[in-house]
Amino acid sequence: MERYELITFLSDFGWQGGYVAACEATLAAICPHARVLHVSHEVALGDVRDGATTLARVAPLTPPAVHLAVVDPGVGTERRPLALQTDRGDLLVGPDNGLLGPAAAALGGVVSAWRLVPERVRLTASLPANGLSSTFHGRDLFAPAAALLACGSPVAALAEPMPAEGLATLPPPLLERLPGFVRAEVVEVDRFGNVALSLNLDSVAPVPDTVAVEVEGEPEPAWLARVVRTFGDLKPGELGLLQDSWGHAGLTLNAASAAELLGARRGSVIRLVLTSAT
Amino acid sequence: MERYELITFLSDFGWQGGYVAACEATLAAICPHARVLHVSHEVALGDVRDGATTLARVAPLTPPAVHLAVVDPGVGTERRPLALQTDRGDLLVGPDNGLLGPAAAALGGVVSAWRLVPERVRLTASLPANGLSSTFHGRDLFAPAAALLACGSPVAALAEPMPAEGLATLPPPLLERLPGFVRAEVVEVDRFGNVALSLNLDSVAPVPDTVAVEVEGEPEPAWLARVVRTFGDLKPGELGLLQDSWGHAGLTLNAASAAELLGARRGSVIRLVLTSAT
Amino acid sequence: MERYELITFLSDFGWQGGYVAACEATLAAICPHARVLHVSHEVALGDVRDGATTLARVAPLTPPAVHLAVVDPGVGTERRPLALQTDRGDLLVGPDNGLLGPAAAALGGVVSAWRLVPERVRLTASLPANGLSSTFHGRDLFAPAAALLACGSPVAALAEPMPAEGLATLPPPLLERLPGFVRAEVVEVDRFGNVALSLNLDSVAPVPDTVAVEVEGEPEPAWLARVVRTFGDLKPGELGLLQDSWGHAGLTLNAASAAELLGARRGSVIRLVLTSAT
Repeated sequence: MERYELITFLSDFGWQGGYVAACEATLAAICPHARVLHVSHEVALGDVRDGATTLARVAPLTPPAVHLAVVDPGVGTERRPLALQTDRGDLLVGPDNGLLGPAAAALGGVVSAWRLVPERVRLTASLPANGLSSTFHGRDLFAPAAALLACGSPVAALAEPMPAEGLATLPPPLLERLPGFVRAEVVEVDRFGNVALSLNLDSVAPVPDTVAVEVEGEPEPAWLARVVRTFGDLKPGELGLLQDSWGHAGLTLNAASAAELLGARRGSVIRLVLTSAT
Repeated sequence: MERYELITFLSDFGWQGGYVAACEATLAAICPHARVLHVSHEVALGDVRDGATTLARVAPLTPPAVHLAVVDPGVGTERRPLALQTDRGDLLVGPDNGLLGPAAAALGGVVSAWRLVPERVRLTASLPANGLSSTFHGRDLFAPAAALLACGSPVAALAEPMPAEGLATLPPPLLERLPGFVRAEVVEVDRFGNVALSLNLDSVAPVPDTVAVEVEGEPEPAWLARVVRTFGDLKPGELGLLQDSWGHAGLTLNAASAAELLGARRGSVIRLVLTSAT
Repeated sequence: MERYELITFLSDFGWQGGYVAACEATLAAICPHARVLHVSHEVALGDVRDGATTLARVAPLTPPAVHLAVVDPGVGTERRPLALQTDRGDLLVGPDNGLLGPAAAALGGVVSAWRLVPERVRLTASLPANGLSSTFHGRDLFAPAAALLACGSPVAALAEPMPAEGLATLPPPLLERLPGFVRAEVVEVDRFGNVALSLNLDSVAPVPDTVAVEVEGEPEPAWLARVVRTFGDLKPGELGLLQDSWGHAGLTLNAASAAELLGARRGSVIRLVLTSAT
């Protein structure tokens, strides 16, 4: 059975209270040789899409790995616990709520899907079979499963096969191309206040020099954004539009928050008038 | 002498300014083979009990390890620097202010207690003996000691034995069982706003279907909480009471903050009327 | 060629959105054996001096390492990407904006300076040569370069030599010694609210028992600070001045925020009247 040198770990737990460390301790106890790479534990609370986006960015950059991801508002309910094998040879472990899908796609797609059987996971990990809490499957189920898989347990020993067609999926973010303008959804506001949209700027041709920007529902009628390559191309206070490093059109200010200027947050809908504004 | 593959590290330093990294760099310089597992560096400032609770959750889940813990408002005063050997075979390193006690108990209890001698630690680590700052023993004393112990230094080479009976302890959180109700202390508010109490719900029998909840000192007279298994059993806005994954009774809302609703914070006293509310 | 066991990593990315993890994944893919030590990713946004100070604290404590540092408001502009060899045998990788200088000095000074050539770095790392984004050189250039260097690539294969005299530098923080008082700049406010100054208290002789403290631009005329060894020497609410663990004079309160009391922030100028206040 294949062993993995690397386990990545993403959650919305934050670092207070030992939730992340309880999972990492479990990984270290069951599979001591595997290195743990923390993807993020600052995913917005219970926000499956935010977690899915972040995981899909990072997973294709790692060497083949077991990817443990827990953003799990349905913990303890009937939602299925999953292990997914991907075309690149990775394994994804987490709840069946859409969290794993974008990363699986970025890793070449799902080759086989499995529903984890908690009793099998726990017994294989030498944990008491009846020790599954109803609220912390990260520690009690997903981390043990990820560690066992990294250390060579065959997935068939821990899980039942299921059809990949039955996996939960997230609806894609809004993107509507209309005559003269585009309606796009804000998919991320980063720490710097950059506003990433559901639009790939490479799909727009020709890109004008300036673009009118309107945030739906905001009183301010429209902003003008200059299309640039990087932050440093902008004058202080000047709004820019650029293709960001993840393939999204991004609204940006040099050394200030575009999100604050525009009153935009994740989920906001933004209209870009892509014909030259003059 | 035994070597350890793992050093866990907990503090209230936060990640700004390089305090955590200065300690981890010291660990890596003195004991390069040992892996470092960060338990949390977001412990509330100077809050020994918060740190003790978090460490006690995580330590029993790791393989045998050296546990470095620094929440140390008395740094540079006469409080003793400790190394404790536990029944499970772990070593705990940190200040003598109660921080290590609950983790030691969770690891089977203290087998032998030692008072670290700074000059011995620093000389053994090839550090200048007179280089002990008066305000950062994490970097200058505790991390070197933890690293030396992980790499096989006998504790007797670094420390003097002391009686375990003399160790500082924290008073237990309030828990008072009265006719018809319980007074319990809030021991944690997590990132999701869940409110964990000093009460183990398994110690209550029978648990009614609903429980009246009163926060002492808050004007709101009482809330009703429904006893449930997990978050997803609750309707939006409905207050629940469940046994949380650490063995505490926990007040919770589905996808919202129970702490905010109740006006509760760590240390608040909560009355639970455990007879059926009808 | 020398290999390194350790890569340190500092940035202002924060942990949301996968920016840090994208870089760490790249390190793990290119140089799997090297351990990654996170110095801090909470550097103030775009604040080169804050990053430089933090890195210079930690770098000398590690074993010889490759130090990856990305606080890079000029990403995608003409600022040069660097690799610096230091006297201690470390390599520093990051943008040419002053970020690396203080750490280089703390490691014995720059022995040779190199300008990274992105195409060479990416081809050597088996990455598409034209895949350099204009906004995320951490992932696309600096992390691949750091990983290659840690795994033994000669710097001359990735970079062109340049004169160390041409490196960007940061102006030193203000420090002015005047008759009877000193004007010093606040170089750090830590998580505890301690206020570190650009003054080394060991350079003041004799140090009086109490010092009058004035924050320029603040209405409050002056505070009295008692010179102490450590936090616990102070009564609650009493302002203290001590030599902090990084060699700075530090204003402090026991278990409260001196920065808040004084209205001081990083960059504030503080006058210390060092003659006895009586």
